[in-house]
Amino acid sequence: MPLTAVPARTNGMPNPGLEGVLALESSICFIDGKQGELVYRGYDIDSLARHVSFEETAYLLWNGILPSRGQLEDLQARLCAERTLPSMVLDVLRLTPRDASPMAVLRTCVSAMAHFDGEADDMSPESNYRKALRLTARIPVIIAAFARLRSGRDPVAPLTAGSTAHNFLHMLSGESPGPQAEKTLDSSLVLHAEHSLNASTFSGRVIGSTLADIYAAVTGAIGALSGPLHGGANVRVMQMLLALDLSGEHPGDYVRARLTRKERIMGFGHRVYKVVDPRATILREMMVNLARERNAEKWVTLCSEIRRVMETEKGLSPNVDFYTAPIYYMLGIDVDLYTPLFVMSRISGWTAHLLEQWQANRLIRPRARYTGPRHQRLAPR
Amino acid sequence: MPLTAVPARTNGMPNPGLEGVLALESSICFIDGKQGELVYRGYDIDSLARHVSFEETAYLLWNGILPSRGQLEDLQARLCAERTLPSMVLDVLRLTPRDASPMAVLRTCVSAMAHFDGEADDMSPESNYRKALRLTARIPVIIAAFARLRSGRDPVAPLTAGSTAHNFLHMLSGESPGPQAEKTLDSSLVLHAEHSLNASTFSGRVIGSTLADIYAAVTGAIGALSGPLHGGANVRVMQMLLALDLSGEHPGDYVRARLTRKERIMGFGHRVYKVVDPRATILREMMVNLARERNAEKWVTLCSEIRRVMETEKGLSPNVDFYTAPIYYMLGIDVDLYTPLFVMSRISGWTAHLLEQWQANRLIRPRARYTGPRHQRLAPR
Repeated sequence: MPLTAVPARTNGMPNPGLEGVLALESSICFIDGKQGELVYRGYDIDSLARHVSFEETAYLLWNGILPSRGQLEDLQARLCAERTLPSMVLDVLRLTPRDASPMAVLRTCVSAMAHFDGEADDMSPESNYRKALRLTARIPVIIAAFARLRSGRDPVAPLTAGSTAHNFLHMLSGESPGPQAEKTLDSSLVLHAEHSLNASTFSGRVIGSTLADIYAAVTGAIGALSGPLHGGANVRVMQMLLALDLSGEHPGDYVRARLTRKERIMGFGHRVYKVVDPRATILREMMVNLARERNAEKWVTLCSEIRRVMETEKGLSPNVDFYTAPIYYMLGIDVDLYTPLFVMSRISGWTAHLLEQWQANRLIRPRARYTGPRHQRLAPR
Repeated sequence: MPLTAVPARTNGMPNPGLEGVLALESSICFIDGKQGELVYRGYDIDSLARHVSFEETAYLLWNGILPSRGQLEDLQARLCAERTLPSMVLDVLRLTPRDASPMAVLRTCVSAMAHFDGEADDMSPESNYRKALRLTARIPVIIAAFARLRSGRDPVAPLTAGSTAHNFLHMLSGESPGPQAEKTLDSSLVLHAEHSLNASTFSGRVIGSTLADIYAAVTGAIGALSGPLHGGANVRVMQMLLALDLSGEHPGDYVRARLTRKERIMGFGHRVYKVVDPRATILREMMVNLARERNAEKWVTLCSEIRRVMETEKGLSPNVDFYTAPIYYMLGIDVDLYTPLFVMSRISGWTAHLLEQWQANRLIRPRARYTGPRHQRLAPR
């Protein structure tokens, strides 16, 4: 990340988007877009995704250090113990129409969990740490329960042991996932856990800066991630892959035709990464391995073709979304659950940022330049 | 408002709180803290609060001009027609524990309304205008329904005619409010409708800047307003007034004792207004009139004493919260509903800002300066 500050323009003009403005200091995540580097708390993403579990990653993000074996066992036990949803949240899910947007449903249920948390407004660091853990434990349960209910099936009770990835896949299908499926999802959760001050994390910190509680801040962050300019790109990647698979159109022709029409191909390029997105490299390997196991190599072929044309024609590399889409598809996850899965992982990063925000809080409130009329007068009445 | 831009510090240091940073241009609200001026779309707050209804104010904020008689009648008819809640939202309220925080309940219900809005994710200006109106119509219904349910009473169905203020007071008590109560609440709604880029409005715009829908953005804004550093000061003013009334302690002694202990007196001073908050002047008149009608002059006496000491000892004037508190109390509104009432009014300003944001959208995403470790290595595993 270019650490030379780019100030808000100093000629008195506003800086829409606050692009380049340094809003705060953070010791959680370092990104060097020119080197293609993504680092959580000093550890590079490649090592973490290959060797460390999602639970260890969450601990690292929250605490700044990796857990000892004992600390990890304690964390896992606490996460498992927190998985049970308040019964009202299940009741709300049963009342929810089947065609509701899963992101909106997740937002509503996370908000409703506050009603049952006796320590919701306790702003001590210890309480907020417990709630960060509680949210991380329960968000997968909400997603899986809604996925079951909307297809007319009963929710599967969460397991009282096992990883977040294992438990989620179990709750989704009612069956035990194989070790490769579990490992793939686990690594994907590590890769999506944190990405510095993106729009959802920033939303959460702005809300948290009023000393609103963690449920208020996370509910807002889920809202931000539901925006098409933020989360949701992996959904559109999969829609493209599915359309190509169905039509049998040559992927190179498809890409070139869209580029000629100045249309965007989802899953390529990134505001921050000017070289390859380091997460894409790892995800590609995971896709290849999963496709081999599942006899689904058509997705690898499709992705390779699209990538080749995009690199030749536009000089753009795939980003994290490009390979996440076929991986989740091969894992049997509904396409509109991809963004909720993003939440299931990013909740660890959001809550790490909130804990950090509240360590030295300051209300985040920029100004607007007024451009409207002055001195209007009411008509006599 | 000092329109000379204060840039983010240019020496490479972040600007926590983004204080003074111009984040965007807006033609909705002008504040001159040195002159004590607050202006919506060119009209000063004093004229608006005295002569214009909340519905006209909302129209002004959304459209930039005051409505003609026909436009106002149309708006009122549409607001009345939109008051009925989706039945699931009432079901959710019935499932909600009575001791839940009314702000959290409002946040959950606003989020849940999205599940029943077939045009929730339609981002056309026409659709977003309809949804702004829908939210403005329904938020009072949610607040009143929860207020009834938690005291063991059935919700009162919204009226199919009449102002927002009249309908709300009717739904709360089941009885028709007198004209003075209606006019007082209506003026208070005008006074709270908009205040430029405060933390909740900014939260809403950040979320909206991802092109997340209006429910996502408003849900986040409600979360921000629930923070003690933002909404909620009027609640603490009332707690102080009630404690003083109960103890019989001399208010001057109370204030001086707190000041000696370096404690804050709620309802005084403002980050923006360096002279008197123009809203406080109008609200004080309203309080005096209401107290006379209700034989509750003790609140006027208490407020005057506290104000006198604060002005003498600290040179601070009352702000909008100071007089809002006793006014809502005299209107018979539960103290923990004061911040939800703030939402009931500010929804007009929030949605005006969202409509403006989406006219020329740009993702709002500042950066963080990384201050953590580098080059950490995993222990062999």
